[in-house]
Amino acid sequence: MKNSSTKEDIIFNADQLFYEQGYEKTSFADIASKVNISKGNFYHHFKTKDDLLKAVIEYRLNNTEKMLMDWQIKGKTPTERIQSFIKILIRNRKKIKLYGCPVGTLSSELNKLEHSSKKEANRLFDLFRDWLKVQFLELGHQEDADRLAMHILARSQGVAVLANAYQDETFVDYEVDLLVKWVDNLNNLTKVKV
Amino acid sequence: MKNSSTKEDIIFNADQLFYEQGYEKTSFADIASKVNISKGNFYHHFKTKDDLLKAVIEYRLNNTEKMLMDWQIKGKTPTERIQSFIKILIRNRKKIKLYGCPVGTLSSELNKLEHSSKKEANRLFDLFRDWLKVQFLELGHQEDADRLAMHILARSQGVAVLANAYQDETFVDYEVDLLVKWVDNLNNLTKVKV
Repeated sequence: MKNSSTKEDIIFNADQLFYEQGYEKTSFADIASKVNISKGNFYHHFKTKDDLLKAVIEYRLNNTEKMLMDWQIKGKTPTERIQSFIKILIRNRKKIKLYGCPVGTLSSELNKLEHSSKKEANRLFDLFRDWLKVQFLELGHQEDADRLAMHILARSQGVAVLANAYQDETFVDYEVDLLVKWVDNLNNLTKVKV
Repeated sequence: MKNSSTKEDIIFNADQLFYEQGYEKTSFADIASKVNISKGNFYHHFKTKDDLLKAVIEYRLNNTEKMLMDWQIKGKTPTERIQSFIKILIRNRKKIKLYGCPVGTLSSELNKLEHSSKKEANRLFDLFRDWLKVQFLELGHQEDADRLAMHILARSQGVAVLANAYQDETFVDYEVDLLVKWVDNLNNLTKVKV
């Protein structure tokens, strides 16, 4: 019981530090110091940084799945659900301003490092992409569903990069508003088409 | 003369390596080995990695200024010039697929590292932002010029992040096409308004 909780603590803090200061920069010592355990205890749970990264990605995948399930239940229409996705930019604005998007920045970093877990990390994008695609399919966009999902993912990634670069909240609000209108408009066009 | 050329070689190779594998990951030894000089010779030119980063940013700023000047001269209309910007995504597609956007990924990394040069690196974004703003002003978008510049910067950043994550060229073509149409459409709207 104690062991499992220490392991969870390590993963939780590694997740934060990988996000806040980057994977390459973060050392075992950084994490051990945050969790307040000895290096020996640390190595008992994770032998390598690669193992720890895998656990962090798994942890993020689980959290993302839960969040998407929650949006799926709470959103009454596909449009409302897509807007839940767009509005992460508002909800997580403070952290995005400081550290960018956790999914996008990890993906970029692991690609540069040619890290063996880069495909695993991409599964985080896949979860959003597949979930958004389902929403667009429900809206009647058969052939374009995946392209629309990628479009909205790209728009939100771009907002995160510039919000981080310029620390500008007004910009985030403005772009979120544009995206919400874009989705509303798609929906109206579909209604007309139907 | 010899000295200045070695220095230029160091900056050129550091620029490549910072882009390809990230700033944090790149060591003096990596660069010295690419330039084929001793560590002693290396330290003669740059005492710290921070100094080298400053020189690389300066080098990128100069190259970007030259490129913008070139677009300014070659593009007959503001719309053509904005489209030169959008089409970097096509021209640099191969590198973007492998390493993302050099401006966006450096900015993200330096923000996470809380690096003292993060503001300097942001000047790369400023160059594009200010130049795009001038184009939109010329198109008659007085109040919106800066917002439109930020919008197009964000869109292109988002495309770079996902092109890198998914190594997908068709996606880049599709999004570039959307952006080109978006600019055309803005231009047409302006013409109607005028």
